[in-house]
Amino acid sequence: MTPKEAYDELTKQCKEISLLGSVTAVLGWEERTYMPRGGADLRAQQLSMLAGMIHERFTDPKIGDLISAVENTDVVKVEDSIEAANIRELRHQYDKETKLPKSLVEELAKTTTLAQGKWAEARKQNDFKAFLPLLEKVIDLTIQSAECYGYEGEPYNALLDNYEPGATVEEIAGVFKPLREDLVKLLAKIQGTSKKPDVSIIEREYDPELQKVFGEMVAGAQGFDFNNGRLDITTHPFCSGFGPGDTRITTRYNRNRLNDALFGIMHEAGHALYEMGIQKDKHFGMPVGEATSLGIHESQSRMWENQVGRSKEFWMYFLPQAKRIFREALADVSLDDFYGAVNYVTPSYIRVEADEVTYNLHILLRFELERAILKREIKPADIPGEWNRRFKDYFGIEVDKDSNGCLQDVHWSAGLMGYFPTYALGNLYSAQFFAKAQQDIPDLMEQFQRGDFSQLLGWLRKNIHCHGSRYRARKLGEKVTGQPLSHKPLLDYMTKKFGEIYGF
Amino acid sequence: MTPKEAYDELTKQCKEISLLGSVTAVLGWEERTYMPRGGADLRAQQLSMLAGMIHERFTDPKIGDLISAVENTDVVKVEDSIEAANIRELRHQYDKETKLPKSLVEELAKTTTLAQGKWAEARKQNDFKAFLPLLEKVIDLTIQSAECYGYEGEPYNALLDNYEPGATVEEIAGVFKPLREDLVKLLAKIQGTSKKPDVSIIEREYDPELQKVFGEMVAGAQGFDFNNGRLDITTHPFCSGFGPGDTRITTRYNRNRLNDALFGIMHEAGHALYEMGIQKDKHFGMPVGEATSLGIHESQSRMWENQVGRSKEFWMYFLPQAKRIFREALADVSLDDFYGAVNYVTPSYIRVEADEVTYNLHILLRFELERAILKREIKPADIPGEWNRRFKDYFGIEVDKDSNGCLQDVHWSAGLMGYFPTYALGNLYSAQFFAKAQQDIPDLMEQFQRGDFSQLLGWLRKNIHCHGSRYRARKLGEKVTGQPLSHKPLLDYMTKKFGEIYGF
Repeated sequence: MTPKEAYDELTKQCKEISLLGSVTAVLGWEERTYMPRGGADLRAQQLSMLAGMIHERFTDPKIGDLISAVENTDVVKVEDSIEAANIRELRHQYDKETKLPKSLVEELAKTTTLAQGKWAEARKQNDFKAFLPLLEKVIDLTIQSAECYGYEGEPYNALLDNYEPGATVEEIAGVFKPLREDLVKLLAKIQGTSKKPDVSIIEREYDPELQKVFGEMVAGAQGFDFNNGRLDITTHPFCSGFGPGDTRITTRYNRNRLNDALFGIMHEAGHALYEMGIQKDKHFGMPVGEATSLGIHESQSRMWENQVGRSKEFWMYFLPQAKRIFREALADVSLDDFYGAVNYVTPSYIRVEADEVTYNLHILLRFELERAILKREIKPADIPGEWNRRFKDYFGIEVDKDSNGCLQDVHWSAGLMGYFPTYALGNLYSAQFFAKAQQDIPDLMEQFQRGDFSQLLGWLRKNIHCHGSRYRARKLGEKVTGQPLSHKPLLDYMTKKFGEIYGF
Repeated sequence: MTPKEAYDELTKQCKEISLLGSVTAVLGWEERTYMPRGGADLRAQQLSMLAGMIHERFTDPKIGDLISAVENTDVVKVEDSIEAANIRELRHQYDKETKLPKSLVEELAKTTTLAQGKWAEARKQNDFKAFLPLLEKVIDLTIQSAECYGYEGEPYNALLDNYEPGATVEEIAGVFKPLREDLVKLLAKIQGTSKKPDVSIIEREYDPELQKVFGEMVAGAQGFDFNNGRLDITTHPFCSGFGPGDTRITTRYNRNRLNDALFGIMHEAGHALYEMGIQKDKHFGMPVGEATSLGIHESQSRMWENQVGRSKEFWMYFLPQAKRIFREALADVSLDDFYGAVNYVTPSYIRVEADEVTYNLHILLRFELERAILKREIKPADIPGEWNRRFKDYFGIEVDKDSNGCLQDVHWSAGLMGYFPTYALGNLYSAQFFAKAQQDIPDLMEQFQRGDFSQLLGWLRKNIHCHGSRYRARKLGEKVTGQPLSHKPLLDYMTKKFGEIYGF
């Protein structure tokens, strides 16, 4: 078999494995949108069978042999060529997937299933102690898996790499530290002003049916193609790119909070536009046909949610539209008042409800805790104390109960350690990309005033989406912006924006 | 490997294959309910991959070996025991699936896909000639497949057996012939009276949202469990039993025809109750965990649709409910007028819109034609002429165009020859079963007057549903009713009912 033949065979195998993955995506989506309660057992069996088949096929030594047969040949001699990038990422994934012993994978799956159930209960009961034994077990197994993967530096690197391939904790901690210090100062500044936007505007009555109409209008303006996707309702919003031509997003409607569904839809549509913009028609099944990292994925959703959706220019166009749809709720609302309300900044306990400024503080707190937990510097039993101490430091308020503190997120119970930083990375990248887009398209914000986002989308397609995993996140960032990862663009953006809103 | 071990291994293998089948069912359902247009290609690839995997796994010689290792052993020595029935049906399916050469399966798949597209176009254009070349090819391939399967008597038997295992054309033709003769007489009698129910009642304005409310109320009364199923909208209504705990039904709403969705929901709910009543928890994956034939399946849907849903007693309870929901449309309607309207009999071109009496004539005509086509007594080119001649004979009216005649059904273009008789068999069985249920539960119709169908459902569960494929349809029918298949119960039921309505 020539290297070219091996590459073609690998492409064929990977496409089949991805087709199985896309079936899993449909089943997962359906489970959360329409499945009747009684279907849960059957669905679990279907998903577990498919997961087993996918794992078995991808970790088959034949796949390893095919990768080896292409490596160091002419097929991949050009760095960052499609072929080279595919083989680079397949090697990376193959080595990771074959490093975990099956017994550990199964025990992690079993334990995290139990732990997620226990966590949900513990959060409801505000009972950390009840959750602790399973949390300890998940953390033990997670550390074991980091050891199996292997790492340089600290164990966190092995896990971070699952979501942000190639990123290191040392590198991002160097950016997160000044970010935290500057955010704490910015928050103090905002809180020091006497200006308090009237947040009650967004807490009026907003008929969910009309929210859907407005949300679809906005998503459509972003470029979400309803011929190649859908918007449905789930408890926890998500985006799932099944494959070429089919990308689903979901949201949840809160009758008395306009922000939740609206910015949720813009956020998920941002993810979807990335999925829709990757060249899946050509590369489905291979890494270049997939997103490069969760951080880059999150940069897309956060940009549409914040830099676009929470901009004044956006609302110059869309507030009049919204007024036509929500006649009563918005009749007396001015642009400035509305803009202030959707950008209201205040420390709060719950990450997913946080504003743009405090959101990153939530992440940084978790990142620092996770790092220490994985190094066994913090024992699981000490998490609540450590959490609350830091929370007071960063936000200036005391955590009143663990369900508003360390019990709020599902991630640790699900074994997703190393995942949180991708949210903050997404914010950092979003600001860096957006600043560059503004440089490249000088009248970008004027286009927003006309409800026109096509040039922004075109810019994202050309500079980010179309590459898929061709470049790792860090390299992509540098290629697009000419700058290394930095907290400055995000801070500049927020300082300017909230300075104007809060008058400093 | 002992016979018992072989049986257990076979059970395990079949369960996995059925799990893959249940994934196919979810994907098929989703394709028709929610999938955006752009997802069609990906979905086709997913379904074709799964179909290939299922076929490959089931026709693996290992499966044949396992079946052989159980046959003629103590495990299956009791006739119609669970084990014996499972092995009997698996042998039957395995032999059939391994008899078609792969090339023929692929050519049939390709040709029927093309033919269905061409048929849809031809029906729209009323252009039989345009469809003819592909129809000829489908028929040729279908006859080839019958030859591969092998048969006693005529080729039709090989195909009929795909849908109605063990049934023979000789046996059912012996029942269909007197049925046709008696139906033609009954129709003439009905048309000879001066009574004409006011069918316009069901053609008033019925808000689809309210039709859904009413439909769900009725399905719930039948016993359809919405915790273990859903009702959605599709162009062509269907029922899909995914597996234990999850059975989906669909309907379509016509604002100006109450019957379509209402009796459609009752019909699909009838199918669903069968699926829900089979002991899938215990036997999922094995034949005993599946329906025994399409004729028996259809008997369940038709019984709920006709013997229940079109009975006067049903409407004694439900018309007042309907009046509360459709206030305007039904305000002035009496029970007798409504009962007459939903039971209006009139010859018409389109099978799926036919009334209870003429419906079977539509089927019998197709059955007779199909039989002659497969024996090559009728050439494909002569189908329109043969169709129209018979139609005049049976219905007393001339077919005005082929789209109202031989072009109306999808079946032949899809290669589904031998399928039609199962509809008529369903009607025959439904009447036979219902007559027996009335004997066993003397106050059954009084129960309907109270909206109580639980004893009927219990009777069906105990006598029919719980057996799955344990008994072949014919044997099941005889076991339940003590009588062979006969057209008498259906004719008695219709003569009594329509005699009362039309006054003869």
